[in-house]
Amino acid sequence: MSAEESKVSPDSLLKFCAACFEKLGVPADDARITAENLIFANLRGVDSHGVIRLKIYTERLRAGGFKARVHPRIISEHASSALLDAGHGLGQIAGVEAMKLAIAKAEATGAAIVGVQNSNHFGAAAFYAIQAVESGMIGFAATNAGASMAPTGGREGRLGNNPVAIAVPAGKYPPLVLDMATGAVAWGKIFLAQQKHEKIPPSWALDKHGLPTDDPNAAADRGLIQPFGGYKGYGLSLFVDILTGVLVGGGFSTHVKGLYQKLESPSDVAQSFAAIKIDNFMPRAEFSRRVEEIIDLMHSCPRAPGSERIYVPGEIEHETEQRRRAEGIPINATLREELVGLALDLSLPSPL
Amino acid sequence: MSAEESKVSPDSLLKFCAACFEKLGVPADDARITAENLIFANLRGVDSHGVIRLKIYTERLRAGGFKARVHPRIISEHASSALLDAGHGLGQIAGVEAMKLAIAKAEATGAAIVGVQNSNHFGAAAFYAIQAVESGMIGFAATNAGASMAPTGGREGRLGNNPVAIAVPAGKYPPLVLDMATGAVAWGKIFLAQQKHEKIPPSWALDKHGLPTDDPNAAADRGLIQPFGGYKGYGLSLFVDILTGVLVGGGFSTHVKGLYQKLESPSDVAQSFAAIKIDNFMPRAEFSRRVEEIIDLMHSCPRAPGSERIYVPGEIEHETEQRRRAEGIPINATLREELVGLALDLSLPSPL
Repeated sequence: MSAEESKVSPDSLLKFCAACFEKLGVPADDARITAENLIFANLRGVDSHGVIRLKIYTERLRAGGFKARVHPRIISEHASSALLDAGHGLGQIAGVEAMKLAIAKAEATGAAIVGVQNSNHFGAAAFYAIQAVESGMIGFAATNAGASMAPTGGREGRLGNNPVAIAVPAGKYPPLVLDMATGAVAWGKIFLAQQKHEKIPPSWALDKHGLPTDDPNAAADRGLIQPFGGYKGYGLSLFVDILTGVLVGGGFSTHVKGLYQKLESPSDVAQSFAAIKIDNFMPRAEFSRRVEEIIDLMHSCPRAPGSERIYVPGEIEHETEQRRRAEGIPINATLREELVGLALDLSLPSPL
Repeated sequence: MSAEESKVSPDSLLKFCAACFEKLGVPADDARITAENLIFANLRGVDSHGVIRLKIYTERLRAGGFKARVHPRIISEHASSALLDAGHGLGQIAGVEAMKLAIAKAEATGAAIVGVQNSNHFGAAAFYAIQAVESGMIGFAATNAGASMAPTGGREGRLGNNPVAIAVPAGKYPPLVLDMATGAVAWGKIFLAQQKHEKIPPSWALDKHGLPTDDPNAAADRGLIQPFGGYKGYGLSLFVDILTGVLVGGGFSTHVKGLYQKLESPSDVAQSFAAIKIDNFMPRAEFSRRVEEIIDLMHSCPRAPGSERIYVPGEIEHETEQRRRAEGIPINATLREELVGLALDLSLPSPL
């Protein structure tokens, strides 16, 4: 922990986030769910999707880009698919509803996909995929986002750093969770580097001229994220946009507005959620045994020189969560100042 | 075209492949489908999955690792999911059947997933995903494969270079098709480099000591493929293995045998196929218009310095197919020798 960091109890941060949202007109249950999504990210060490987003959420709620009091509405529904209209409300509320519906449909048929249009930033995608795990299913969640990446060979934003999350129940182990942006890095990590005054690897971003940069400020000044793994990352990002924006009738590509742009306007973000019922393939206990075995096979792999331990996806996040639940969530000086300012501004007791 | 290459008509190659399979006891329709899968890959420029695999297919058919006369059997079936037993037959036959079933189920419910256990190498995954496009749907196909990659930090094979393919109808444009191995490269490309006596990029493979190598022979001698994009590629490969091997009751991780190992034994490969019905989300024409627009948005992106053209996934393969249908499929000297030998061996007229 740097001298500038302090650790804050997850519970008091959660209550503070929820109180901020309520103060801005969000119903108590919705405020709680949205706050849980942010704290979920911080607990798991994904600080780029945690309370660092609280300020912009409150600004969008105030400006009207996030509607405080709307509930997602089913537009169309079939046995294994459905389409929701989020009404430009909080992405978290629509996300939780959509995943619930996907789980219910997959329970009845074996597999289901539910899309959400007119949505907003929904925070960490893993939050929704894990909902399926709690029902003994495999879950998927994906969202598009404001264009911050170019197609391979391009130099203007055409695709978001669109993430996809998959979560799988793992028996005696914590769930396997892959929550992966299709960019080399999440924007939030670039913002964190800005706050911490650190350089970034040159593979993360392009500056406004289309050239790789190690300066997070240059990246944030009209720069672009680079896709991960070259053209494969570009391809994945494009297909996430098709499975979210294009398929569900939402915004896509340049039609999606970034979280930090035009705070008074809808973002036109779109999401998709899917679930697969494991019981249709084999008894749950047998599946658990098989997942445990594949995890054991990864862990027991002889290590490459220099490697201290082999992880499975979600394992580091799970251990971080155990630790942060006990020790608190680290908050750096810039973020502390932001949260204290927010408390003052909304006439709420400071969480710090 | 190098001096060592000759171009062969796709039709005569197709007939030759089918004749080889028939000679080894595969029923005519099944032989045709399997041959189509190989030629599909060559036509699209994915030579690593084309007739370069013919010899090993015939060897496995002879040795018993591929059963010539079995038909996939439905083990369990629900509204939006099903499980097939391929009976250790050709992966192509089970793949086409499973995707047909996924399409039929998605037609009825909106989305479906069908798994195949006791399967074998199924060639290019895009072949199956495109079946869904022909029915106006979005298609997915994935397979696991013999362990050739280590988890991040490891130095022994625990995961296959598991590919996933997604195909989307694109209105007036050729379908968008992403067919992506989770390794930095397909094994077949390393075999091609061996045949062509070319070096490989050091990011493709590890040698048997776990060190990066630019020698395709060193890679092929008990080496490993590297995952693409670092730990994200590892994560994707693991989840493909879970969605195929683990979920469908097939082999997974080290239980899957490589195509070139133990020719007399089942490979225990597993596959999954999924389809999403577009009509449940919006009229087909509207979807086409939206996909065309996102493709136009990629193509029209201002180009980075040095970039001559921006492609969408599947576009290069489509153009290669147009060209190769007209000009023929290039066959290098090593492969020509192999095919001529095969013709001699099976008492068939040479296709070359």
